[in-house]
Amino acid sequence: MKAINVGIIGVSGYTGLELVKMLISHPIFNLVYCANTEGATTVSDLHPALMGVCDLNVEKVDIERTAQLCELVFLALPHKTAMQTAKGLLAKGLKVVDLSADYRLSQENYEAFYCEHEDLDNLSHAVYSIPELHGKRAEGAKLIANPGCHVTATLMALAPFLDHIDLSQPIFVDSKTGVSGAGKSPSATVHYVSVNDNINCYNIIKHRHATEIEQHASALCDGSVKVTFVPSLVPMTRGMLACVYATLKDDCDPLALMEAFYNGKPFVRLRKAPPHTKMTSGTNFADVYATRHGNALVAMCAIDNLMRGASSQALANANIMMGLDETLGIPRIAYVP
Amino acid sequence: MKAINVGIIGVSGYTGLELVKMLISHPIFNLVYCANTEGATTVSDLHPALMGVCDLNVEKVDIERTAQLCELVFLALPHKTAMQTAKGLLAKGLKVVDLSADYRLSQENYEAFYCEHEDLDNLSHAVYSIPELHGKRAEGAKLIANPGCHVTATLMALAPFLDHIDLSQPIFVDSKTGVSGAGKSPSATVHYVSVNDNINCYNIIKHRHATEIEQHASALCDGSVKVTFVPSLVPMTRGMLACVYATLKDDCDPLALMEAFYNGKPFVRLRKAPPHTKMTSGTNFADVYATRHGNALVAMCAIDNLMRGASSQALANANIMMGLDETLGIPRIAYVP
Amino acid sequence: MKAINVGIIGVSGYTGLELVKMLISHPIFNLVYCANTEGATTVSDLHPALMGVCDLNVEKVDIERTAQLCELVFLALPHKTAMQTAKGLLAKGLKVVDLSADYRLSQENYEAFYCEHEDLDNLSHAVYSIPELHGKRAEGAKLIANPGCHVTATLMALAPFLDHIDLSQPIFVDSKTGVSGAGKSPSATVHYVSVNDNINCYNIIKHRHATEIEQHASALCDGSVKVTFVPSLVPMTRGMLACVYATLKDDCDPLALMEAFYNGKPFVRLRKAPPHTKMTSGTNFADVYATRHGNALVAMCAIDNLMRGASSQALANANIMMGLDETLGIPRIAYVP
Amino acid sequence: MKAINVGIIGVSGYTGLELVKMLISHPIFNLVYCANTEGATTVSDLHPALMGVCDLNVEKVDIERTAQLCELVFLALPHKTAMQTAKGLLAKGLKVVDLSADYRLSQENYEAFYCEHEDLDNLSHAVYSIPELHGKRAEGAKLIANPGCHVTATLMALAPFLDHIDLSQPIFVDSKTGVSGAGKSPSATVHYVSVNDNINCYNIIKHRHATEIEQHASALCDGSVKVTFVPSLVPMTRGMLACVYATLKDDCDPLALMEAFYNGKPFVRLRKAPPHTKMTSGTNFADVYATRHGNALVAMCAIDNLMRGASSQALANANIMMGLDETLGIPRIAYVP
Repeated sequence: MKAINVGIIGVSGYTGLELVKMLISHPIFNLVYCANTEGATTVSDLHPALMGVCDLNVEKVDIERTAQLCELVFLALPHKTAMQTAKGLLAKGLKVVDLSADYRLSQENYEAFYCEHEDLDNLSHAVYSIPELHGKRAEGAKLIANPGCHVTATLMALAPFLDHIDLSQPIFVDSKTGVSGAGKSPSATVHYVSVNDNINCYNIIKHRHATEIEQHASALCDGSVKVTFVPSLVPMTRGMLACVYATLKDDCDPLALMEAFYNGKPFVRLRKAPPHTKMTSGTNFADVYATRHGNALVAMCAIDNLMRGASSQALANANIMMGLDETLGIPRIAYVP
Repeated sequence: MKAINVGIIGVSGYTGLELVKMLISHPIFNLVYCANTEGATTVSDLHPALMGVCDLNVEKVDIERTAQLCELVFLALPHKTAMQTAKGLLAKGLKVVDLSADYRLSQENYEAFYCEHEDLDNLSHAVYSIPELHGKRAEGAKLIANPGCHVTATLMALAPFLDHIDLSQPIFVDSKTGVSGAGKSPSATVHYVSVNDNINCYNIIKHRHATEIEQHASALCDGSVKVTFVPSLVPMTRGMLACVYATLKDDCDPLALMEAFYNGKPFVRLRKAPPHTKMTSGTNFADVYATRHGNALVAMCAIDNLMRGASSQALANANIMMGLDETLGIPRIAYVP
Repeated sequence: MKAINVGIIGVSGYTGLELVKMLISHPIFNLVYCANTEGATTVSDLHPALMGVCDLNVEKVDIERTAQLCELVFLALPHKTAMQTAKGLLAKGLKVVDLSADYRLSQENYEAFYCEHEDLDNLSHAVYSIPELHGKRAEGAKLIANPGCHVTATLMALAPFLDHIDLSQPIFVDSKTGVSGAGKSPSATVHYVSVNDNINCYNIIKHRHATEIEQHASALCDGSVKVTFVPSLVPMTRGMLACVYATLKDDCDPLALMEAFYNGKPFVRLRKAPPHTKMTSGTNFADVYATRHGNALVAMCAIDNLMRGASSQALANANIMMGLDETLGIPRIAYVP
Repeated sequence: MKAINVGIIGVSGYTGLELVKMLISHPIFNLVYCANTEGATTVSDLHPALMGVCDLNVEKVDIERTAQLCELVFLALPHKTAMQTAKGLLAKGLKVVDLSADYRLSQENYEAFYCEHEDLDNLSHAVYSIPELHGKRAEGAKLIANPGCHVTATLMALAPFLDHIDLSQPIFVDSKTGVSGAGKSPSATVHYVSVNDNINCYNIIKHRHATEIEQHASALCDGSVKVTFVPSLVPMTRGMLACVYATLKDDCDPLALMEAFYNGKPFVRLRKAPPHTKMTSGTNFADVYATRHGNALVAMCAIDNLMRGASSQALANANIMMGLDETLGIPRIAYVP
């Protein structure tokens, strides 16, 4: 099959790094262009673990040059910068997979939590896609809005039950995340001494991902889903475990229902016991589990926040977008022990 | 004030160690006797961190000798062994603070989750006590049933709201614990490689502490409280964070209500933001917080699982039992940074 | 090229798991047989991270059946059991790569530190091989004695300097290892609570790897190398950093010398600053660095203890043994961030 | 005994926090003044773990006001700021314990590694003191130069052997430190993701503490001691383990020699096996061990880098300075398990 030249803009961070790691051995995508805000460096200078493995130059972002070299671009940029960059790339006819929040929400929801939206035209056709929940809707898209990590884990735990829970009762989401989700920039929050031997919830209820969950859960069931979202920061580098707590309105068997819902999906594993995040580390797997206690539903999904929660899902979406097999070049072998 | 001679039976484990650490500088209690199953060792051989600090002999458990030396005994033993030992000590007229589960539950609940109860006589007068919730009921008691760690954290988050939540709707408890809660015995579960960079739920719904929560929450409100209990194992040595999720039936202000409820309590700190477990590490503090989202209640309590969740609460109970100030010899300075 | 059927005996442990992870995507080796002492299970039951990725049956060890199915076998067994198994396999004409210590030492050294040697015939032709130090000596071998982790890291730091250091002066090796090196069996030593937030040296000077270092360093320089070996246990899952301290007898430039020594080696990376173990995690890379301070030599090598220190080096040796390219199927992309 | 009013300038960092934790229960020192660069806050706002335990105001540094309130001041400031502040305080007649590097080195050594020295007058009478090595020299001093963490651990391992080792041969110091030694400011180096599951050496040979070791080791033996210093960053919050490697010139028994050297010292514990840093966590203990292998010396010292490596040693020095018992208010009970 013909190679497709791709680029990564925003290659300095963790999700950029994960994209590089996958793209350098992808059978169709050919990584030809890496850029960040400053340029004048190489992938292995930014990420010394890749010394001798990927020593590509990293250039200063340049829309013109990107368009000359690439057919498809992954954007691993902060919100706002992402839409400013995507706009130009899309105008040049490139395909874009955006890992930021910029195209994930309705204008109203976006502007309530982020900033003024500067690219409403493209927002109108951006495709939000978790492959197991949204099917092939990414196929042929020009712009993918790649979902957030907490949102992916939550929706994958919640989706099978949307028709079985009482939406008028509270839905609680207790989502535990590793530190890499906070990004590479140093801050008091990610100081080793603050994180180690500690656990705490943060941004509860008001977290931006709560709105993203609500918008996309509502779309999935054509109803109005409200969630009470409580994320916590766990002393681990990567991994995410979303626990969804809701009230069932029928006598379904949650595990059987989940099994039927995800039957045949290559990147979902139904566990017979609560999943361990470590089992998914470095992969695109979502390990799911559910049970009930009277009318109380407990549904869980464990993922790698950087992979299924960002980069490997972006790559799966890119595969689908370009008409390729969803699984091409997507890691399945976990970072264990 | 006159010194009171005390002993610890079951000094080998983590809760025994914590008791030693506090008792060697307690102003009234005089630690004169330490025992475990094997004997023939010393406290500092069992716990090398105490070399030069506490080199007391550790003897093989002997009821007769305990009775000669001590007025009060802390039992840090596995369940079943605890009641077998307590029975003999109580028959000799000693006061007992039992850290095991043996006197925490009704016979029916106990036998459903543990084993046959062998000391129903003493079970009938054992006093279960979280000082802030049960007041001075420990005063003058002969036998304290010291509460479990998950239970303490959960009840302290839940208790202020028992009259304000709809008990007919699910109450979820998502309780995150450090590894020391699993005890000192080696096992696959506590292997460093299993725990590090991982999080997972375990024994969900069926955990023994669920029953303890239900029995004692029900007693506090004279109602029938059912909880869906989901504990998780966090890669940290100590610390526990219980998050309680329930449905409010009135328009109370959760934080104000919590503040009023715990007003003046020396070991409860109302936080203005979700608490960090590390802030309570090594102390008897319970750091609490609550908020609402519509009719959804989120209430939290962070404790040190070995201290407030076991040994320091046991010591506070012992203080009250003996008519002393609850705060005597109880640590308040956290293990930070 | 024609596929080669291979097996793993001792698939339950960490090094067995690493072998599986590599072999399932090796272009020539075809993993057809997995065994352990008990059998009657599957790879993914033993290693739940591999659910859906490798669900091969795991059988009880059976020499006859191994011989029917395999051309080459990896032994990831405890010492003693390894030689007992290897003996039978070699008698059947199979090729064996042994990851244990059983064929690494002379009879005299082996029996001083382990037990009576039960397979002297095969010991006589076993090939000890670190490819960069021993070249193609593994080619055509029947039995590979795969080097120990501390030994690999130490020899790779030390080897370039053997002709430049004063062997009559002490050579110190301070080697820091992650916990997975201690194996999967639960013990007090690997209890999370013992390891976390702690560092300590163990088995200093008397560690079995000291002898292995001395025997093979001596062989490399045809001299008598004595080392003072001080390993320490670091709170991390994987990774190893050997620091070699010795007295230089000439005015060599250590970094230039190291560069020349490892020039063109695909799995050695010369670092311009002290290496981080994390940069090699999950790969076969040895990241090396050296400098001097007067006549004091400081030479370092960082590896992944389970990969270069065991399984990926075993696979590289198997590749060479079978006349294949050393790099086939060997991971180069690190487990970062 | 009469209370002595003391202050802490630079209360925001980790060593400031440790000073507060000790001073609030010191029997003689009365903490009356806390300051930092910005002021207008409280101790518990800076260090939320102390909420309800120490809610003292934190003022903007003011020499005049310090002099009105305090007799003795601890400076937990960055170098340079420390001497600028100390100068003023000393001019007002206050006693000063400086935890920075500003008065630890000769002018020549200081200026080679830090900056121009701005307070040579006070440098000339500053007393550098590790109580076990320097005896009562702190008594009556006006200014204490409190030793660095790596230096304290190294000198305590090395000092007993200074007359027994060949100073013409290399002395290697491999010193492993927890992350809190890098201070509270966020940076790439202390990002949780950089530290976790990783170990690396840093600033080798050129570390500022190397000079401090050499100057003070030389002073102790009236010789010229050169060291090759190799620090490493260990994924743990606190703790330090210095391993000293040198060449013995006589046939001494290192452990016996160490025992004699530290006989009767209340804060040194001779271990029969290599010490664990965790055993000293939260205390002023130095746990030491030594052995030999031929003429190779291995000597170790484990400390808590923030306590014996900074704040508790500062307090011990302050006790001695004021004619008090060295042990007053100094923690001995470790943060275990």
